[in-house]
Amino acid sequence: MALTLSIFLLVLQCAFCARYDPNWASLDSRPLPAWYDEGKVGIFLHWGVFSVPAFGSEWFWWYWQGEKQSAVTQYMQANYRPDFTYADFAPLFHAEFYNPAQWADIFNASGANYLVLVSKHHEGFTNWPSTYSWNWNAGDVGPKRDLVGELADAVRQRTNIKFGVYHSMFEWFNPLFLQDQANGFTTQNYVRAKTMPELYELVNKYKPEIVWSDGEWMAADTYWNSTEFIAWLYNESPVKDTVVVNDRWGNNTRCAHGGFWDCSDHYTPGTLVPHKWENCMTIDKYSWGYRANAQLSDIHTIEELITQLVTTVSFGGNMLFNVGPTAYGEIAPVYEERLRQIGSWLNVNGEAIYKTHVWTYQNDSVADNVWYTARTNGSTTVYAILLSWPEVGNLTLGHPVASRSTVVSLVGYPGQFKFFSPSSGGITINIPPIPAGQIPCDWAWVFRLEGLQNQNTKLDSFAFSKKLKALQMRKEFPKFQ
Amino acid sequence: MALTLSIFLLVLQCAFCARYDPNWASLDSRPLPAWYDEGKVGIFLHWGVFSVPAFGSEWFWWYWQGEKQSAVTQYMQANYRPDFTYADFAPLFHAEFYNPAQWADIFNASGANYLVLVSKHHEGFTNWPSTYSWNWNAGDVGPKRDLVGELADAVRQRTNIKFGVYHSMFEWFNPLFLQDQANGFTTQNYVRAKTMPELYELVNKYKPEIVWSDGEWMAADTYWNSTEFIAWLYNESPVKDTVVVNDRWGNNTRCAHGGFWDCSDHYTPGTLVPHKWENCMTIDKYSWGYRANAQLSDIHTIEELITQLVTTVSFGGNMLFNVGPTAYGEIAPVYEERLRQIGSWLNVNGEAIYKTHVWTYQNDSVADNVWYTARTNGSTTVYAILLSWPEVGNLTLGHPVASRSTVVSLVGYPGQFKFFSPSSGGITINIPPIPAGQIPCDWAWVFRLEGLQNQNTKLDSFAFSKKLKALQMRKEFPKFQ
Amino acid sequence: MALTLSIFLLVLQCAFCARYDPNWASLDSRPLPAWYDEGKVGIFLHWGVFSVPAFGSEWFWWYWQGEKQSAVTQYMQANYRPDFTYADFAPLFHAEFYNPAQWADIFNASGANYLVLVSKHHEGFTNWPSTYSWNWNAGDVGPKRDLVGELADAVRQRTNIKFGVYHSMFEWFNPLFLQDQANGFTTQNYVRAKTMPELYELVNKYKPEIVWSDGEWMAADTYWNSTEFIAWLYNESPVKDTVVVNDRWGNNTRCAHGGFWDCSDHYTPGTLVPHKWENCMTIDKYSWGYRANAQLSDIHTIEELITQLVTTVSFGGNMLFNVGPTAYGEIAPVYEERLRQIGSWLNVNGEAIYKTHVWTYQNDSVADNVWYTARTNGSTTVYAILLSWPEVGNLTLGHPVASRSTVVSLVGYPGQFKFFSPSSGGITINIPPIPAGQIPCDWAWVFRLEGLQNQNTKLDSFAFSKKLKALQMRKEFPKFQ
Amino acid sequence: MALTLSIFLLVLQCAFCARYDPNWASLDSRPLPAWYDEGKVGIFLHWGVFSVPAFGSEWFWWYWQGEKQSAVTQYMQANYRPDFTYADFAPLFHAEFYNPAQWADIFNASGANYLVLVSKHHEGFTNWPSTYSWNWNAGDVGPKRDLVGELADAVRQRTNIKFGVYHSMFEWFNPLFLQDQANGFTTQNYVRAKTMPELYELVNKYKPEIVWSDGEWMAADTYWNSTEFIAWLYNESPVKDTVVVNDRWGNNTRCAHGGFWDCSDHYTPGTLVPHKWENCMTIDKYSWGYRANAQLSDIHTIEELITQLVTTVSFGGNMLFNVGPTAYGEIAPVYEERLRQIGSWLNVNGEAIYKTHVWTYQNDSVADNVWYTARTNGSTTVYAILLSWPEVGNLTLGHPVASRSTVVSLVGYPGQFKFFSPSSGGITINIPPIPAGQIPCDWAWVFRLEGLQNQNTKLDSFAFSKKLKALQMRKEFPKFQ
Repeated sequence: MALTLSIFLLVLQCAFCARYDPNWASLDSRPLPAWYDEGKVGIFLHWGVFSVPAFGSEWFWWYWQGEKQSAVTQYMQANYRPDFTYADFAPLFHAEFYNPAQWADIFNASGANYLVLVSKHHEGFTNWPSTYSWNWNAGDVGPKRDLVGELADAVRQRTNIKFGVYHSMFEWFNPLFLQDQANGFTTQNYVRAKTMPELYELVNKYKPEIVWSDGEWMAADTYWNSTEFIAWLYNESPVKDTVVVNDRWGNNTRCAHGGFWDCSDHYTPGTLVPHKWENCMTIDKYSWGYRANAQLSDIHTIEELITQLVTTVSFGGNMLFNVGPTAYGEIAPVYEERLRQIGSWLNVNGEAIYKTHVWTYQNDSVADNVWYTARTNGSTTVYAILLSWPEVGNLTLGHPVASRSTVVSLVGYPGQFKFFSPSSGGITINIPPIPAGQIPCDWAWVFRLEGLQNQNTKLDSFAFSKKLKALQMRKEFPKFQ
Repeated sequence: MALTLSIFLLVLQCAFCARYDPNWASLDSRPLPAWYDEGKVGIFLHWGVFSVPAFGSEWFWWYWQGEKQSAVTQYMQANYRPDFTYADFAPLFHAEFYNPAQWADIFNASGANYLVLVSKHHEGFTNWPSTYSWNWNAGDVGPKRDLVGELADAVRQRTNIKFGVYHSMFEWFNPLFLQDQANGFTTQNYVRAKTMPELYELVNKYKPEIVWSDGEWMAADTYWNSTEFIAWLYNESPVKDTVVVNDRWGNNTRCAHGGFWDCSDHYTPGTLVPHKWENCMTIDKYSWGYRANAQLSDIHTIEELITQLVTTVSFGGNMLFNVGPTAYGEIAPVYEERLRQIGSWLNVNGEAIYKTHVWTYQNDSVADNVWYTARTNGSTTVYAILLSWPEVGNLTLGHPVASRSTVVSLVGYPGQFKFFSPSSGGITINIPPIPAGQIPCDWAWVFRLEGLQNQNTKLDSFAFSKKLKALQMRKEFPKFQ
Repeated sequence: MALTLSIFLLVLQCAFCARYDPNWASLDSRPLPAWYDEGKVGIFLHWGVFSVPAFGSEWFWWYWQGEKQSAVTQYMQANYRPDFTYADFAPLFHAEFYNPAQWADIFNASGANYLVLVSKHHEGFTNWPSTYSWNWNAGDVGPKRDLVGELADAVRQRTNIKFGVYHSMFEWFNPLFLQDQANGFTTQNYVRAKTMPELYELVNKYKPEIVWSDGEWMAADTYWNSTEFIAWLYNESPVKDTVVVNDRWGNNTRCAHGGFWDCSDHYTPGTLVPHKWENCMTIDKYSWGYRANAQLSDIHTIEELITQLVTTVSFGGNMLFNVGPTAYGEIAPVYEERLRQIGSWLNVNGEAIYKTHVWTYQNDSVADNVWYTARTNGSTTVYAILLSWPEVGNLTLGHPVASRSTVVSLVGYPGQFKFFSPSSGGITINIPPIPAGQIPCDWAWVFRLEGLQNQNTKLDSFAFSKKLKALQMRKEFPKFQ
Repeated sequence: MALTLSIFLLVLQCAFCARYDPNWASLDSRPLPAWYDEGKVGIFLHWGVFSVPAFGSEWFWWYWQGEKQSAVTQYMQANYRPDFTYADFAPLFHAEFYNPAQWADIFNASGANYLVLVSKHHEGFTNWPSTYSWNWNAGDVGPKRDLVGELADAVRQRTNIKFGVYHSMFEWFNPLFLQDQANGFTTQNYVRAKTMPELYELVNKYKPEIVWSDGEWMAADTYWNSTEFIAWLYNESPVKDTVVVNDRWGNNTRCAHGGFWDCSDHYTPGTLVPHKWENCMTIDKYSWGYRANAQLSDIHTIEELITQLVTTVSFGGNMLFNVGPTAYGEIAPVYEERLRQIGSWLNVNGEAIYKTHVWTYQNDSVADNVWYTARTNGSTTVYAILLSWPEVGNLTLGHPVASRSTVVSLVGYPGQFKFFSPSSGGITINIPPIPAGQIPCDWAWVFRLEGLQNQNTKLDSFAFSKKLKALQMRKEFPKFQ
């Protein structure tokens, strides 16, 4: 048996000991490290010079001087001297209250398993003291601190959260990029002087376990030298065995190549996708970066956030909740409240989210607002997640089929529930009048269905494609092509 | 009958047609206009130059240069040029997002009936363009707007909320005040040049229905000329019939003279008080002004706020919830959330708060966390407010005594509840298992008790003293005097 | 003889031991302390918040928001945020390089005998930490220093220069003043709250030997309470024996009442005036305050300044040269150069300026650009000051009449000059070819004429009026009255 | 004749039609374009972000954060917030009064023939909107203008002054440079990303006729790729026929390779140098950049400047006078005054400076403070420049030898001077008593000596080396090796 184990470990290890070539066929063949799919919930942080005006969104510069949107130009006219430049905001980015330990504790309380910090957005300002962005980085101007490194350290010391970085390939107004663009991307001066040196520096210095690329859509992967970078990342980098990347590596790669797929922002496919994917969404409905004038009505309610989480995980996605810290370095209380509310829900119901996989069905066809996840550990448990608490009496779910050994319980509540198998199919659970004071949580409730009939095949998240052939036969996924 | 009505109106009017003399005996004899006691809930706004550093509290200047607290001096050393003065903060008070209509709508949604805006705090900066505070007011420096006037207009146009102003009599660092102080308050140069001209200007210009005085404790009412001002306010001012004032008019007046009593901040006497009083408290536990680095744990939960409201009203107090707007003119979302949560609770349970009076008992002696209010309109209804939802079964309250016509119901929930009179006294209500989804509100729940036995004497809020003689006989108020 | 001296001293002292009543007849009867007339040359310093924009002139605020001159409004639009106020300039008034000892040394090198520092201009900002101008003074905002006191101390420690202060009675935008003005000056709230308390504080604190009043023209002396103040200044103040004042104390006092007369700015009467007067002029042709964008052509040449000095003194005036220090506290080098050039000229030719009095004639009727002063110490010496160096040969002056004892010499040059009395009258001096390298100074040259015929009556500067009756007989002064 | 002219032009053109190889032997063989030697006088302008603190010197950043000089660190501590960075000064570089036409007129009035504007100093901030210095250039931050291009245009439109640029090869704190340095200059990442792209951009864009290199001393010319750049400049660039460069192209090139030699700053060899050289000196004795706290005593007098000019030209050097404009875009008046004073002197005496060459002797051995230049146009005229005006009588000069046709005159003064040849050798000029008012100029005076004996060989500035062999024989140049 020891021998068998050794061989098993050897095989397991070898999943990551392969060398990858700088082409998508090879790179796409790498298995996604398991931690990512199992973790399910991440926190995204948009922080940068745009946090200073904190107006409109993190696309402030582009809206101001690219598109020249009137709301932004009027705001600037009303509040700044006429010759004020975007670069002039940088000295006002003080981050004076930035306390990475405090942030780490908030993130930990949210139940998230990974973090994606914007290390550089399309503005080109690096939140670490980059060698390749002189006088346009957080060490030389504004905070005079290594915003990236300090958070990486704090998160690793205080939590088990994986630390990742967001990085924008292009920069709206970088003249080297604009020159390459004007040359039809036949030159790569910008890529050689900025993007690639930065990415290597970032990985070598901070060892992020996610490289969340963005800003790739202006040019093909060949302009960006993306496959060379990823091959290095998988073969040579200090995080070669654990790192995950997304799919934004060129205007031809989204939803097609890379690690997990982000496809579009707020990606909610509404159907199964033959690949591990992620739904990145922002708690402020209108911006990823902090907005000083956000109203409460602009901010997603906890009910909306739990709905996103549940439906995303039901369809096999990871959920990446975004928050924009302030220029002075705070997670504003309303966002801290949302993160802690998510954490309080996950604290009760985490078993229906973490380490789960998609079930045969994603939502119920009879009961409204009921979503499924499943977890297999020897046997498979199915979780029916209800976004509204049902009326007292009988709740019929159309998809689960009970067996003799089926047990129905409410996560966080003692005892079992009565049920029967109605003639119309599915399962009918008897909902007693649980008194208001004894309900285990707010916002969504999870029925644990153990020992259902053997329709409960474990779906391999890393091998969607095979399974999907079968799934495509079913009418539940009419939209899937 | 027309004659009777006329006489009645004449008498009613005459309650306010008396002339008052500038002494406390006369001024204290004025009946408190009814709207104040009936309204019960107010919003307090601390806004000023202190909102710019937004550090520590609205006492920032004093902590920095009066007490020289190390936290504040270190903050200044770390973040400002060494010769930075407090006055240098004023140009940074931009209020660029200040939208009084939006504020008015938030206040309206909170269920509050009156507003107290800081027109000038101890820093001496007037939020209106005062003639007597040149270059140290919001018209000359910073916002360049009439912060007071704009809010007064918006609140009056969009809501029925009464508009009031807070005004500090002394100013920490005003050299004229310091001079009077050094003279043992035998001179009144400061009062003549600043306090009094300002107060008259404020009342004549904005017609506030509350003059909420503060900063009075350094000197006696005779130094401040308080009684002269209040006599003018009651006899001559444009708000003479409707205005209310508090009790902070000299170091000898708190809990003794004026209109309603604020006594100390966060005043929660824990017993009946022989006078109309108010509990002013702040939603940020540590500051009345906005703090940029407030954590969520620094901010009262909605449960804590509802508890304050309920217990305060049970004891005959009004509740004044404070919020500190930002220097850029926003009610930060977390405070908007709390205000709207209070409003959502009052929307269901307002009948147990507004226009109520104290009942014979304030809280129950048998059941924990049950507080009483009462409302008399012909007959009297008693409200038992529960701060935690009881277990299913029997809930016994020690004080109410049922009669034959007694009806027990839950505010916001249909139908009546069964009850009986236990031999031990009081009333026992049968609590059915109200399902989680049908409970009418969160945080606190109100039983409406109609037709109780005639112990239900209406307490005249304006004549506590007589009633209190009787109350003092009872052992329920052992703490009183 | 000792007795005679004692009596003389007694009489002299008693000139200042009289008590003055608060009316002009009495106040005007006070003899002007001799140091002022004897000193002849003063330096004027315009420094204040206006030194920060340093644009246009020290009237910046008025031009911007009073007159709304387009040059100034455009400058503000181009360079400041739209809600920038004048008060916002104050925090930028840092005076970081202000070194009063260094200033004193420059003034000393200029040959000046008195100094007039703007303590408060029409903007109302006091350069000392005034009790009556809270948060609008140099102690509370900007420099955080006592600009007035530090210079008074340095000048007194390092030089014999008399220290004086300029003070503006009115303030353009002070709302208390505007209110009095709107009331047709029937109220004096502004005078009581600001002007008078400030003036008393200024005199008691800094003991200035000049109180140079300005900003008086909007209202009569009775509004300002001027005579009361001056009576106190002459009778009670710590500088009662030595102080001098000017004539700007009400819209009815210029060129009529007070001490010396300034009449208008740049006052150059071009004739004898029956009173001691002063020509205040500014070295920057267009501004009294510092201008950041002054061109060299905007700055008077040393030749122009010497011309002003010579002609002013010839007509009995004192010369007050103005310089505007920078907001950072420097006398800009070009102004230091002019002051030192004046000093280098006075170092050679001071005997023709200091302690001189007007001669029978002020300028010559035959030779161009020749001006006269005279000095009497027992006998009288007449000085003929030439603004251009004459050609070699004979220079005929029309007014001096030689006697047998007449001696003609060039100040700063050894030996005597030959001369004769031409039949046409006057005196003809033989000008030898003084080689370029031996001329004693630049810009103007002084012939010392000793022992002229006895037309040389000493004029008493303090008793012009008598003398002027005689002078009026002469056709040389056709412009008088 | 047409043919002759054509051949002449062909020859002339061919002087510049050679191709140069990227090695010093080839590059040094290029003749220096004549305009440079003939022009003699240039103006140097140090302008950049260092003009904002305007403290210490243009090396402010290095003194602050490199050397950590206490004067600078204390200044920063006293006047800026602790986290203020050098980059934070850039937004304060407004150049709001920058008027290139006005500057051009001042330079024109100074008599200068060329201009050297700092396009980028060791701080790395480019005064033009460079593609290679994003967010650290005058187009993106601060002025938002092309400071270089605007001045080039104005100077070319309004004057005949040649436009040149100063450019620093290294940058103190550029991390790419520091990395190359740490690698012992075995890598050239900085040179490839910054120095070279910038230099090509600068030349192609602004066509400067001088490329005045600096900041080269840290590494060898091979690190900088200097010879490749200069070869391109001489062979291909838009200014290939007219451009001149200096000698600062590597730590092995000063006083050895390139165009004219600057050797050290303030280079005043005190002897003949076998190469065209330049004396760059700054009018502020202590700084090349503007200093806000410069005292008059810190600024060279016009006498000192004329002395520098005369002695420099006597020894074959060009004179480059430096001025530091203010951050707000002004040539401060005291510097404008010096420049105009230089111009007023050259306006009279230019013939003794422009287009002159060194004479056989550089200064006189008998008379003090007499310096020689010579001008050959057919015959040779020698100029004896006197730094002090001689006494009346005989002035003996030791070197000139009169012939029969010799004529002696004073530049700017009519007529001829008597002279004789004393037995002791040289020439004795009779100095008449020129009256003070008729001397043609101040500060220095020029005797024009025509028709001297034929010792007056024209020195070819471009072929010093040959001539110097002869000169070395003479004892006048004992220091020359």
